[in-house]
Amino acid sequence: MSDFRDAARGGLSKSELEAVLRQVGDERYHNRHPFHYRMTSGALSKAEMQAWALNRYCYQAVIPRKDATILAHAEDPAFRAAWRKRIEDHDGEDGWSGGIARWLHLATSLGLDAEAVKSERLALPATRFAVGAYLSFCTNRTLFEAVASSLTEMFSPLIIGERVPAMLAKYDYITEDTLAYFNRRPEQASRDADFALAYVLSHADTAERQQQAIDALVFKCDILWAMLDALQHAYGAPGNIPPGAFRPESVQ
Amino acid sequence: MSDFRDAARGGLSKSELEAVLRQVGDERYHNRHPFHYRMTSGALSKAEMQAWALNRYCYQAVIPRKDATILAHAEDPAFRAAWRKRIEDHDGEDGWSGGIARWLHLATSLGLDAEAVKSERLALPATRFAVGAYLSFCTNRTLFEAVASSLTEMFSPLIIGERVPAMLAKYDYITEDTLAYFNRRPEQASRDADFALAYVLSHADTAERQQQAIDALVFKCDILWAMLDALQHAYGAPGNIPPGAFRPESVQ
Repeated sequence: MSDFRDAARGGLSKSELEAVLRQVGDERYHNRHPFHYRMTSGALSKAEMQAWALNRYCYQAVIPRKDATILAHAEDPAFRAAWRKRIEDHDGEDGWSGGIARWLHLATSLGLDAEAVKSERLALPATRFAVGAYLSFCTNRTLFEAVASSLTEMFSPLIIGERVPAMLAKYDYITEDTLAYFNRRPEQASRDADFALAYVLSHADTAERQQQAIDALVFKCDILWAMLDALQHAYGAPGNIPPGAFRPESVQ
Repeated sequence: MSDFRDAARGGLSKSELEAVLRQVGDERYHNRHPFHYRMTSGALSKAEMQAWALNRYCYQAVIPRKDATILAHAEDPAFRAAWRKRIEDHDGEDGWSGGIARWLHLATSLGLDAEAVKSERLALPATRFAVGAYLSFCTNRTLFEAVASSLTEMFSPLIIGERVPAMLAKYDYITEDTLAYFNRRPEQASRDADFALAYVLSHADTAERQQQAIDALVFKCDILWAMLDALQHAYGAPGNIPPGAFRPESVQ
């Protein structure tokens, strides 16, 4: 396990910085989390799958607000025109025909009530705190750091490639229709990650900024990791569901 | 387990509102958390005790900033004069002679390095997200809601009364000197909680505001609960420490 706190010391070339950013993903992206291994090995209970879907909804739902915050900090019209595609991807034409709607479909296909999912009231507090930390980061840090924090999308096609075939193979209640959300994501994520990586590499012109980019990506990996930690703790063993959160017996 | 989302429906008398607030504490304050039971029963490893101290430091360290945010929102000089005592309690005369310094003493008495604790770099990301959520809440919500979220202090003398005698009795490496932080807290917390409760009861003049007060206290209980969830998950069983967080073997 690397400590990335001094990774840019002395300054890095563009290819060296890219290599460090990819190393952050190799070591800290949430496809390395035990909950993900349990998901892809078929070990999750249906209640855990439901809890994953309804907690992850909180993350999906905040993405366009996060991206709007980034737009609001961007002075370059060409940057804004490229970045606003992300909002269109998630909200769709009318707010409910994009990625958020497809995630809601995933959740309801697992037997959850749409209004309960959309209300977010059954999510783990730890999920809300992690998602809120991501929004706060993009609000309070520089545009450069907010863009760098989005670079987890570099690794998104990887985890989707691990997740989707395994979910279809291991859980008889999951169909291709359930997982329609993921059909478009690899292409969107690759397009977005290419843009963001090019931006970060071309703007990381000092060792300090390079370190900021690395720190932002570590921070974002921490967000995704903490969300799975919270799920694993609350639903991986009996007796740990915090007050007010989704209790499987009340829904299934 | 109560659902407090409609607890103020139709409006409550002052004594009814106070009773609901106390019920929130009875059901959701973190003296009901399994990690607290393990602490008071003598079951924590020293590594868990260290992890608790260094993670809780992040909470202690943000309290004066949270209170300064509340001061910044308060237009009444008499309110500010009362509330600023909290900042003095935590920072002391020179920044390092108040509650934060005494918490640091607690941590170093457990064998932790002062600079490592103060840097907060070994804290669990989930701790940072929870503490950040508390600061964001007090920044973004109304003064009334921020004051209401402080009402967990009503229950603080209770948990200290459970914690201190048990820690002294059950852990041979813990002395009265280790726990000097707690000597002054019950008196300070009672003074502060009396003030905040009187403020909330006198300003909760609609059912909507009463519900806001209840929601704020539930939110704050969620913060404290999530911090212990994260500790329990990371350090209660092997293999769960997230990347970058305190690893006992490297310090003890």
